[in-house]
Amino acid sequence: MSRTHHSSLSDRRRRFHRYPEPAWCEFWTTCRLVDEIEQIGVDALHVGPDAIDTTQRMNVPDEDTLTAWYERARDAGARQSVLEQLEGGNTGAVAVLERGDGPTIGLRVDIDALHIEESDSADHVPAADGFRSETGDTMHACGHDAHMTIGLGVLEAVKESEFSGTLKVFFQPAEEAGGGGKPMAETDHLADVDYLYAVHVGLGHPTGEVVAGIVKPLAMAHITATFSGTPAHAGNAPQAGDNTIQAASSAVSDLYGIPRHADGLTRVNVGRIEGGSVSNVVADETTLWGEVRGETTELMRYMQDAFTQRVEAAAAAHGCTVDVDVVSECPRADSDPELAAVVADTARGRHDVQTVLDSAEFGASEDATFLMQRVQEQGGRACYAIVGTDHPGDHHTPTFDVDERTLETGVDVLTDAIVATAAQRP
Amino acid sequence: MSRTHHSSLSDRRRRFHRYPEPAWCEFWTTCRLVDEIEQIGVDALHVGPDAIDTTQRMNVPDEDTLTAWYERARDAGARQSVLEQLEGGNTGAVAVLERGDGPTIGLRVDIDALHIEESDSADHVPAADGFRSETGDTMHACGHDAHMTIGLGVLEAVKESEFSGTLKVFFQPAEEAGGGGKPMAETDHLADVDYLYAVHVGLGHPTGEVVAGIVKPLAMAHITATFSGTPAHAGNAPQAGDNTIQAASSAVSDLYGIPRHADGLTRVNVGRIEGGSVSNVVADETTLWGEVRGETTELMRYMQDAFTQRVEAAAAAHGCTVDVDVVSECPRADSDPELAAVVADTARGRHDVQTVLDSAEFGASEDATFLMQRVQEQGGRACYAIVGTDHPGDHHTPTFDVDERTLETGVDVLTDAIVATAAQRP
Amino acid sequence: MSRTHHSSLSDRRRRFHRYPEPAWCEFWTTCRLVDEIEQIGVDALHVGPDAIDTTQRMNVPDEDTLTAWYERARDAGARQSVLEQLEGGNTGAVAVLERGDGPTIGLRVDIDALHIEESDSADHVPAADGFRSETGDTMHACGHDAHMTIGLGVLEAVKESEFSGTLKVFFQPAEEAGGGGKPMAETDHLADVDYLYAVHVGLGHPTGEVVAGIVKPLAMAHITATFSGTPAHAGNAPQAGDNTIQAASSAVSDLYGIPRHADGLTRVNVGRIEGGSVSNVVADETTLWGEVRGETTELMRYMQDAFTQRVEAAAAAHGCTVDVDVVSECPRADSDPELAAVVADTARGRHDVQTVLDSAEFGASEDATFLMQRVQEQGGRACYAIVGTDHPGDHHTPTFDVDERTLETGVDVLTDAIVATAAQRP
Amino acid sequence: MSRTHHSSLSDRRRRFHRYPEPAWCEFWTTCRLVDEIEQIGVDALHVGPDAIDTTQRMNVPDEDTLTAWYERARDAGARQSVLEQLEGGNTGAVAVLERGDGPTIGLRVDIDALHIEESDSADHVPAADGFRSETGDTMHACGHDAHMTIGLGVLEAVKESEFSGTLKVFFQPAEEAGGGGKPMAETDHLADVDYLYAVHVGLGHPTGEVVAGIVKPLAMAHITATFSGTPAHAGNAPQAGDNTIQAASSAVSDLYGIPRHADGLTRVNVGRIEGGSVSNVVADETTLWGEVRGETTELMRYMQDAFTQRVEAAAAAHGCTVDVDVVSECPRADSDPELAAVVADTARGRHDVQTVLDSAEFGASEDATFLMQRVQEQGGRACYAIVGTDHPGDHHTPTFDVDERTLETGVDVLTDAIVATAAQRP
Repeated sequence: MSRTHHSSLSDRRRRFHRYPEPAWCEFWTTCRLVDEIEQIGVDALHVGPDAIDTTQRMNVPDEDTLTAWYERARDAGARQSVLEQLEGGNTGAVAVLERGDGPTIGLRVDIDALHIEESDSADHVPAADGFRSETGDTMHACGHDAHMTIGLGVLEAVKESEFSGTLKVFFQPAEEAGGGGKPMAETDHLADVDYLYAVHVGLGHPTGEVVAGIVKPLAMAHITATFSGTPAHAGNAPQAGDNTIQAASSAVSDLYGIPRHADGLTRVNVGRIEGGSVSNVVADETTLWGEVRGETTELMRYMQDAFTQRVEAAAAAHGCTVDVDVVSECPRADSDPELAAVVADTARGRHDVQTVLDSAEFGASEDATFLMQRVQEQGGRACYAIVGTDHPGDHHTPTFDVDERTLETGVDVLTDAIVATAAQRP
Repeated sequence: MSRTHHSSLSDRRRRFHRYPEPAWCEFWTTCRLVDEIEQIGVDALHVGPDAIDTTQRMNVPDEDTLTAWYERARDAGARQSVLEQLEGGNTGAVAVLERGDGPTIGLRVDIDALHIEESDSADHVPAADGFRSETGDTMHACGHDAHMTIGLGVLEAVKESEFSGTLKVFFQPAEEAGGGGKPMAETDHLADVDYLYAVHVGLGHPTGEVVAGIVKPLAMAHITATFSGTPAHAGNAPQAGDNTIQAASSAVSDLYGIPRHADGLTRVNVGRIEGGSVSNVVADETTLWGEVRGETTELMRYMQDAFTQRVEAAAAAHGCTVDVDVVSECPRADSDPELAAVVADTARGRHDVQTVLDSAEFGASEDATFLMQRVQEQGGRACYAIVGTDHPGDHHTPTFDVDERTLETGVDVLTDAIVATAAQRP
Repeated sequence: MSRTHHSSLSDRRRRFHRYPEPAWCEFWTTCRLVDEIEQIGVDALHVGPDAIDTTQRMNVPDEDTLTAWYERARDAGARQSVLEQLEGGNTGAVAVLERGDGPTIGLRVDIDALHIEESDSADHVPAADGFRSETGDTMHACGHDAHMTIGLGVLEAVKESEFSGTLKVFFQPAEEAGGGGKPMAETDHLADVDYLYAVHVGLGHPTGEVVAGIVKPLAMAHITATFSGTPAHAGNAPQAGDNTIQAASSAVSDLYGIPRHADGLTRVNVGRIEGGSVSNVVADETTLWGEVRGETTELMRYMQDAFTQRVEAAAAAHGCTVDVDVVSECPRADSDPELAAVVADTARGRHDVQTVLDSAEFGASEDATFLMQRVQEQGGRACYAIVGTDHPGDHHTPTFDVDERTLETGVDVLTDAIVATAAQRP
Repeated sequence: MSRTHHSSLSDRRRRFHRYPEPAWCEFWTTCRLVDEIEQIGVDALHVGPDAIDTTQRMNVPDEDTLTAWYERARDAGARQSVLEQLEGGNTGAVAVLERGDGPTIGLRVDIDALHIEESDSADHVPAADGFRSETGDTMHACGHDAHMTIGLGVLEAVKESEFSGTLKVFFQPAEEAGGGGKPMAETDHLADVDYLYAVHVGLGHPTGEVVAGIVKPLAMAHITATFSGTPAHAGNAPQAGDNTIQAASSAVSDLYGIPRHADGLTRVNVGRIEGGSVSNVVADETTLWGEVRGETTELMRYMQDAFTQRVEAAAAAHGCTVDVDVVSECPRADSDPELAAVVADTARGRHDVQTVLDSAEFGASEDATFLMQRVQEQGGRACYAIVGTDHPGDHHTPTFDVDERTLETGVDVLTDAIVATAAQRP
């Protein structure tokens, strides 16, 4: 049974795809979501500072960046009255449907994009079909455009279904930066949630495959390290400098060399480096933007400690100091098998689903775990499902794209799962 | 004999100090110079594209940077008619005084500033006395503000002197980037220059000391290396990335480790690094802005070859490619002792000069050598003099400043040297 | 049922413990094994070149090392007639018991020690009880002394049991160097083996725990990389050198930074480095002794390719060349569950076994996989079991030791498993 | 005038060349020198502990190495009675000629060889003519064989000359290791020396060129850094290790990257590295043998401090500790121009000397500076001369050789200089 037309889901997703915004800068995106949600019609809608605990935000960009995206959204036609609520980067929304007695069920989708310049190759469908990113070197390269589309679709479909209970759809900002999960998890909106679903498309699973509940999302911390040294003229007094580019480079080499751990997966990355000014001055400031992950929170801590140890030593080697800042973190939280079973049952037997995996490991991190952990600690249950989609490029690369047939599958499977959960209370 | 009032020299220098602009962005500065030169009154004034060979420019910033500085200069009140001539970053000027028969004598001063944030300490005179940089993190941290002031002062003083011949003052852009010397050296303005002077303040020599002619300015090349790799999700597919931050960091470590050379001084620096986007994506592009120097042009080539070898190998180590671009270069050219003797004679015996060194080594690089080399190859003579100044911080650091008593000494010594040169034709 | 006295097992193990010999140098050890086996009485005994395919040996030490250990064994009283057969480092033995009709069952134990200096702390039982290593900085730090003891004990016990079939005990040399498994696997002694057992003590499993069959022994390759450069006087011609210590150090940093792989465990280590001569000469030769591992053979190949890529690039960065030599390899081979079930059944219910794990992962590598793979490819079955033992220090550290109660458990479990296998032919 | 036959000088030099011995192991060499000196006939001869202050020795090899070279010397026929005096590595000799009234003049030559394997190429004269090194990978690759020959030749020639005064020839051990200069400088033999000469062949100066007195011998320190970490099984517990090979490699990269210094020449080298045991154990001990040099003692200290800072930080980065040991040092000491003038006068006009340089810079280090400094501090004068020699390979390389015509030039120039010095007392 399909409740929404494929074409309208496609249109929605493409509209989001054309206007990607990075973490905490989802101004236009939030306004657009509000427009769509109001058109669907809900019982309550919480926006911006009403949707998140603004004091818990992590990894917020600087004022200039926020302002630039804010103004761009305004120029792009974002509704002024909504936009103003979001000022300072308080983005995101929570939509609530109340449909009589029954449990409170949440669905969390994320809404931010990445700093990646989208491919303009003729092979890349968004480029060929004219819905490539219009916001410069920012791109929906992880499928959050599809997630929002699914979130809206589920809202629409549940509203028209026999569902009895309360549905809350959490449109969460700043997932990529690891900074939005906690501020949303700590609001009262989560306090009465009995069951929580989260959804991701793709992740290497092809169209027609559904993973009912993932386990092992890696615990993660985003860390910046800012080295401070002493500038000097590189030609006539090189010895007077304390060289932060040398220090940061030593650190990078040592960071990737943190020993693998026998107890499970670990990861380390330095995704951005920036330092110094011009070629003839010894650089007196350099910053690394890095992250560590672990299969368990303990393993993540092992990596985090080793990260700090290495950047501090690299600073000392070159007479510099370093300021280490953990800008965001997310814990590990696994899917409850009882909820995963509901998803699996729902997915099996559908004409557009060929394969159902009861569970799969997740080699990445997700701050949905903050919301899942909150619900699980309250005695509720949580489940993170994957709806497979053929994607030509990997996630986080310029040629990433989704197979749009997935949108309908996602809406239908999650709607059915939510309806069944309300009925069965597993 | 003092021809100009100390206070007016100070005022001029402070005005320039307050508005530092980086290489090829000296829009306001050039306009200001034109105003001052017109007020002095000269026989010819060549501005922007008429002062340099625009096809020879090296190390020009990108369009956005040029535009931002251009607009800032306009907003700061730069004269529109002059400003328009400079569009696209064609800055600089050549002022010509014709005073009857005699040789053509040049004086070259440089006009650009550095990307350094000026100290706001109460100990730092420009901060305390209210003429600290007003253009953000850009600063006259090498004394070019003093050089321009001396250039204007000499123009004024020679005009009023018994000088017979032609004087050309070259206000050269983009010295710090190593990119302005060649475009100025290759114009016809140099074709008839018989004697060329260049001047620098400070460089570790105190107020009251003059170096008549420096030798051993280091040959230099500015080089950028841009690494290209493959992006990947750092959590779920780290092995799919070809990591340019790892490659660039390996390169930095190896670059500083290029062996010292027994034949003379060498230098290497990476003054800026920038790469990647966010912490959870393997960085697919990283750029290094570096430079190499050598006591001779051969030693500079040794360093340049070693630089290229190391960045290429570092790229290969991490499955990346690298594009190496030599953005600018300057040769070594020494002062002719005959001209240095004129400066020494002039400086000796002055009440404000305690020490005169016939020559000194110069541990840095200077693209004045392009102009010196041109004149020397034509059969003329060239001399690069230092007028000492007490400077609290080193050149290229946030607390650099000049002792303003030096301005008058600089104007007087150079004026007298120019007048004497025209008379003696050494 | 205990077939041998605990004390005699202890004595045997301690005798081996006192005389550890490294890979391919197990001269005294092999002679001692021959003495013990002859005392037990077997139907056939193949020694040295008759026990291994000498052409397949990998990672053999140089002539001087072999000679030194040979002579030391002779001086320590090794039986001359046996010793002579082992000349050139052809060590190891295969003991055969023929006991009527039935399948041929193999048991493989390893016999070599490590280059580690044993702890002389009073807390370290071998030191306190007077059986610490007597061969300098070589030590049984992985339990092969226990393995040999178990091998002999099983031979003895099976001989006295109701066993029907043929038993072959493979005393394999050079496991630590990854070089002995293949030469033993390729002999005819394996050709008729229907079932193969291998055994290891400890590996983090405590006394009283048995792992019936391990899976995921990491595939592995040992690799040496020898850098060749150009020597030079470090004081008066540093630039004339091509510095292999710089090259090797760059390589080490890059090797540990090979990206973790999403498909499974990987490992890399450089366990030894040696290069150069004296401090004032640029080092013209440096060698790394490294290894890579992977959860699958493909992952091991990924690491091996990345290893080669990085050492070659590091050589190029410093003008050196490098010779990369894969000195030994071992594949991954898992335990067959049918045989593991026999071990589990045997172990369960014993008074000295509290816990039986059907299987466990093995975070290390083992060249027993060559023998297992041979038997499995022939249509036979193989199983690698762990007999837990409390060990104060980790394997491969100076305070490693075994709980000697384990020896009896090991003998009994394996004897019963072998007897049961012959009876059941699973 | 030639006082000795070229052929006998050649024979002597070749005999020494065939039997090179490293620092503090010059057992055979010292015995041979004693034989030769006794044959010449001197007034006093001080050997071993009588020639040096044994408590001041630096960089002495371990007992095993000393014993091996001692026994080799005995087996090679060194005179037993002399050899016994040298036990424990107390090598070297001082020969004294007393020839009536006059000043005491010293000549210092060094006697040790290097750990370099000599070329066996047909182009290499020692190989082609059968006097290649017979002591394995040790070689007279710096010309000390020629120095000893010159020392003996001067003794012989001065004895037969009109010289009036006292001549002391110092046959100094352990120059290459930087450890022998100080122990010889601190003996009473130096207390009455008025004039001291030292001599070196080659150093890039061709046959027929003499440098009367070198200036700027680099100050130097030899430093070892021994990293201690924690061993671990590289396969199943990599995270348990504290990896000294990683630490040492990071240190090497950082050491070569110590900034060049604007005040003058600096040098750094790591000439030897050794660490770890086998490939599958995380290495718990690694040692670097390094050195630093500076154009002044201050610059050497700058490098020494930077060396320590970097190895300590590298250790900290990898959880290791490091023990830094300055094994030897030598100061800078320049030639006195008065003595250099004597050498220059002597050399000029000789048929076998085409070029005389009054002075030259010396890009290397020399512990002759300890003796020079002692004499200069006492009010005496010192001079270090170079006798040029064509050398096919650089110093400290396998193809180094000397042009034997140089031997006679060296003997004659120094003899004449010593005789003239005694007469003129400059």
